[in-house]
Amino acid sequence: MEDLAPAIVLIEPQLGDNIGAAARAMLNCGLQDLRLVRPRDGWPNPNARAMASGADEVLDRARQFDTLADAVADLRWVFATTGRRRDMVKHEVTPAEAAAEIHRKSALGERCGVLFGRERIGLTNDEVVLADAILTVPLNPAFRSLNLGQAVLLVAYEWFRFADETPPRQRIEAGLPRATHGELQIFIDHLEEALTSADYFKVDEMKPVIVRAIRNLFTRAELTDREVRTLHGIVTALVGRRRDQL
Amino acid sequence: MEDLAPAIVLIEPQLGDNIGAAARAMLNCGLQDLRLVRPRDGWPNPNARAMASGADEVLDRARQFDTLADAVADLRWVFATTGRRRDMVKHEVTPAEAAAEIHRKSALGERCGVLFGRERIGLTNDEVVLADAILTVPLNPAFRSLNLGQAVLLVAYEWFRFADETPPRQRIEAGLPRATHGELQIFIDHLEEALTSADYFKVDEMKPVIVRAIRNLFTRAELTDREVRTLHGIVTALVGRRRDQL
Repeated sequence: MEDLAPAIVLIEPQLGDNIGAAARAMLNCGLQDLRLVRPRDGWPNPNARAMASGADEVLDRARQFDTLADAVADLRWVFATTGRRRDMVKHEVTPAEAAAEIHRKSALGERCGVLFGRERIGLTNDEVVLADAILTVPLNPAFRSLNLGQAVLLVAYEWFRFADETPPRQRIEAGLPRATHGELQIFIDHLEEALTSADYFKVDEMKPVIVRAIRNLFTRAELTDREVRTLHGIVTALVGRRRDQL
Repeated sequence: MEDLAPAIVLIEPQLGDNIGAAARAMLNCGLQDLRLVRPRDGWPNPNARAMASGADEVLDRARQFDTLADAVADLRWVFATTGRRRDMVKHEVTPAEAAAEIHRKSALGERCGVLFGRERIGLTNDEVVLADAILTVPLNPAFRSLNLGQAVLLVAYEWFRFADETPPRQRIEAGLPRATHGELQIFIDHLEEALTSADYFKVDEMKPVIVRAIRNLFTRAELTDREVRTLHGIVTALVGRRRDQL
């Protein structure tokens, strides 16, 4: 994973907290190559470690550089994260597109990196010019200000998400097998019989409609066999109680 | 936007900082309905305001609830965010799928909400049971621990991203029009002439190949008309300098 993953380059980060949050977000998403250009409070920074919440391996391997040019010297494609438009003709990509392009280029052996600017003022125009493309996160135009750690998270998350194969929606079985349709049928028969005895079906013509509605409801619930047994017990208990009351 | 947006429900959040980070992430992505169930340090909380970095409107409208049941009483679909598997048969969705489903259900007028648990222990099983589905963020299996504010950001970001129509890759013009192909041709002619005079094409047969490579390079650069003028000036200056040297 690592060789294909982009480098994350933080330029003059001011707060150790944010470096730590960035490291945590990186490791959450399988990124490990953190590069720091002139961190304000020097390096290493204990505040970074506290905020990293265990992402120590990223901090331990982080490298410090004196210039941005040094930090990106081995990279073939560089994206500059920025929230505001520059007076500059350049391609701009979304985080999802950047992730797709990084995956494609990395698969060809071409290392990529993403630049993040200072907390308050971001990247200078001279720094943006060094990048092959601008990366802008689409956000609420009325409130675009993104924390540094959160900006790193979104870029890293899109990178992870691109190759992730988790099914969008799946049923967690938790070791409890689904009931068979035969088991469900026996329960519906049991319930129908109990309801008939209880004189629930006042009008005979309505009975098939009501039974169908009941069947649909319990089918949609995607019952486990244990749940079907629970429902049998509930019906039996309620019938017993009614008998006792008679 | 607001009526279609999901409610964000934080259950017993411990740190005001995290409530503030969640509010900021929400407003970044156009969400405004923040619901707090028994926040540990009471409400309002000055730490939340400091971390919200201007997302005051979300904090000002945040509502406090005594129970989760009260907090979700008006919602028709509820997702429970959790990082670990439960001993429970339930559907599990990714943030992207949750976003898609929330958009579809909201469009039908059915309000949705997403639950987030306590910083340390997350949601209890009794709380997860109340939800229609589990929402799990796919992350590096070796380091899944996500900060509360960052978890809210990812869910909110996917919701915003679903309806966002930003082109994946676009060229920012910055008011500087692209050169015409005629202008580019004149520049290539100028350069070719200058190179011929400078005896750059040692072997005549190679000249078309080299000129084609030069043309391709400058075409790929997608020059503006101002840049073509700059390049003319560069060639003229270099030719002049060489003449001076002769």
